[in-house]
Amino acid sequence: MKIRSVEAIPLAIPYRRPFAFASGKATAADHVLVRITTDDGLVGHGEAPPRPYTYGETATSIVTAVRELFAPVLVGADPFARERIRADLARTVANNTARGAIDVALWDLVGQACGQPVHALLGHAADEVRVAHMIGLGTPAEMVADAVEMSDTCGVEAFKVKVGRDLAHDLAAVRELRRELGDSVELYADANRGWDADTAIVAARRLADFHVTMLEEPNPADDVLGRRRIVRESPIPIVGDESTITLGGVARSLLDRDADAISVKVARTGFTDSAKIVGLCEGLGVTTVVGNQIDGMLGTVASTALACGLRSLARHPVEVTNFLLMSDDVLTDPPVIADGRSGARQGPGLGVAIDPDKLARYRADR
Amino acid sequence: MKIRSVEAIPLAIPYRRPFAFASGKATAADHVLVRITTDDGLVGHGEAPPRPYTYGETATSIVTAVRELFAPVLVGADPFARERIRADLARTVANNTARGAIDVALWDLVGQACGQPVHALLGHAADEVRVAHMIGLGTPAEMVADAVEMSDTCGVEAFKVKVGRDLAHDLAAVRELRRELGDSVELYADANRGWDADTAIVAARRLADFHVTMLEEPNPADDVLGRRRIVRESPIPIVGDESTITLGGVARSLLDRDADAISVKVARTGFTDSAKIVGLCEGLGVTTVVGNQIDGMLGTVASTALACGLRSLARHPVEVTNFLLMSDDVLTDPPVIADGRSGARQGPGLGVAIDPDKLARYRADR
Repeated sequence: MKIRSVEAIPLAIPYRRPFAFASGKATAADHVLVRITTDDGLVGHGEAPPRPYTYGETATSIVTAVRELFAPVLVGADPFARERIRADLARTVANNTARGAIDVALWDLVGQACGQPVHALLGHAADEVRVAHMIGLGTPAEMVADAVEMSDTCGVEAFKVKVGRDLAHDLAAVRELRRELGDSVELYADANRGWDADTAIVAARRLADFHVTMLEEPNPADDVLGRRRIVRESPIPIVGDESTITLGGVARSLLDRDADAISVKVARTGFTDSAKIVGLCEGLGVTTVVGNQIDGMLGTVASTALACGLRSLARHPVEVTNFLLMSDDVLTDPPVIADGRSGARQGPGLGVAIDPDKLARYRADR
Repeated sequence: MKIRSVEAIPLAIPYRRPFAFASGKATAADHVLVRITTDDGLVGHGEAPPRPYTYGETATSIVTAVRELFAPVLVGADPFARERIRADLARTVANNTARGAIDVALWDLVGQACGQPVHALLGHAADEVRVAHMIGLGTPAEMVADAVEMSDTCGVEAFKVKVGRDLAHDLAAVRELRRELGDSVELYADANRGWDADTAIVAARRLADFHVTMLEEPNPADDVLGRRRIVRESPIPIVGDESTITLGGVARSLLDRDADAISVKVARTGFTDSAKIVGLCEGLGVTTVVGNQIDGMLGTVASTALACGLRSLARHPVEVTNFLLMSDDVLTDPPVIADGRSGARQGPGLGVAIDPDKLARYRADR
């Protein structure tokens, strides 16, 4: 089996409502669909979400990187040869989500060629995982309403709360969430680098009072000593995300005590490097959590497959609700969240099909 | 697909000649063949070599662990569910090669179910790898004769030289090997914990003069400060093997500076944990080398598949010649080493078949 063509198709799908967080705001999904076709007619898909505030990529840069830098390396290669392809693509730095989407598409092809779903190839740790919902910045009332809706409609019992603004406002929101949702739900927090170290240390202590379990990216990790001071002083684990976007970066961050736990995202490290990061973190005794790059449906399916594949990822609720922000998408079957859980797809590869009418409607290059 | 039965079959296969090293001597292969059969008739195999001086296991303990502890967990499970099975088996400590053989047999089944060879499932880094031959202890003349024979008959150009006895004797052997084999071959050394720290530091410097590239297990790693002093003082990398037999053990050893590089063995960590160890070591920037547990043909095929699957392992010569010590084995097709290389098998799973007559002849339980 050899790769015949690699396409990068920019999409434009409106959001139902904007999603706000300390480092930015998202209002429409300008994701790039990566489609890899083999000489025996299999088609694999991956999705690259442009996140300039995290990776410096735009939809245009992703399309260009895939077409001009990566496609020439991929065409003619065997999709199974992910280790070789990974090394070849690594000659280009950055372009994280472009590379992540290619790796996801390769695993989609490998799964189809094997007649097996990706989570089974990874190790089949679980058939379904608990779901965590991400609550964007807003008034305390808006944030509570969002959480209650997800609890009522989908049974979700874990919430990642965006914080990182004015601390009093953040704490008021967390207090309301804890009061409305009760003690049995898990709350954890993500400041998206919005605080300075002194504020973050106070915040971590106050958040712990509300039984918030973890705090993600409290300040910029490049505020080197400040970040280490937070990790040292915080009563709850500090999660690395934007500061831990590669395998080597995860190792450096953990050895330098910049983080206690790691958010793993298919969108940037695909399946191949995500599994390596999990190996690294298991060896070091570090918790890993499946994060969400404000993924569309395709990325959501991939994230769920990753979590269901590897046991340490299946143990914590998985962030897979962001696709609900989008008004629509290009998959024929949207992900299902029920009873607070999401299941791995049983079809070969990612188990997804692209709706040709929707692809025609939402593609931004025609 | 569900596991229907798990068998542990003790074998007794004479060696052509004994193999000596600083911590022991092997004269016959009392390996245990693990055979896992599924409800749809697939049969997967793995091989557990009892190495009491490394893991505390005997053939009897392996057979007992597989039959009494592991089979009840495995029967009824899906062979794809390696992450769940791994966690279940991990409730029993030690028994490393018993567990390794089970994981290898599970991957053999997974590959057969997918119609793909294991190295392709792992990432298909290479179709073939360079081979390293292990030279047991002997007189310098005997050791040179062994190396020259492997060079002449199989084109091997990398040799792991057993050392760890009287240093003058060891250095005489290495000097002769370098003189006879020339400068272009790779020589590396394995002391199997035979020296004390002071001797090892002198040895490392002298071995470096002969362009020996690495030194494995120079002294007992439990001589804690002594080992760290060797790692600090040695001009060549110190490789952990007997002291780094689990994922967590590898992490601890590297963080404690007990080793600079890691020997990875399918015999003890199967494919699943070996891949995790490679992820850990890649993240930490640490060299990994595929080692040999004096494997028979089945273990040799598995080691080659691992090395061909993962790129960091495919880069260094792979220790896969020890099966030549055995007078025979139970596979229908022995591994082939030619032009200093060994190739991954192309058949599904491990791509091996057991010869029923040979199995009947060599099984030790009937």
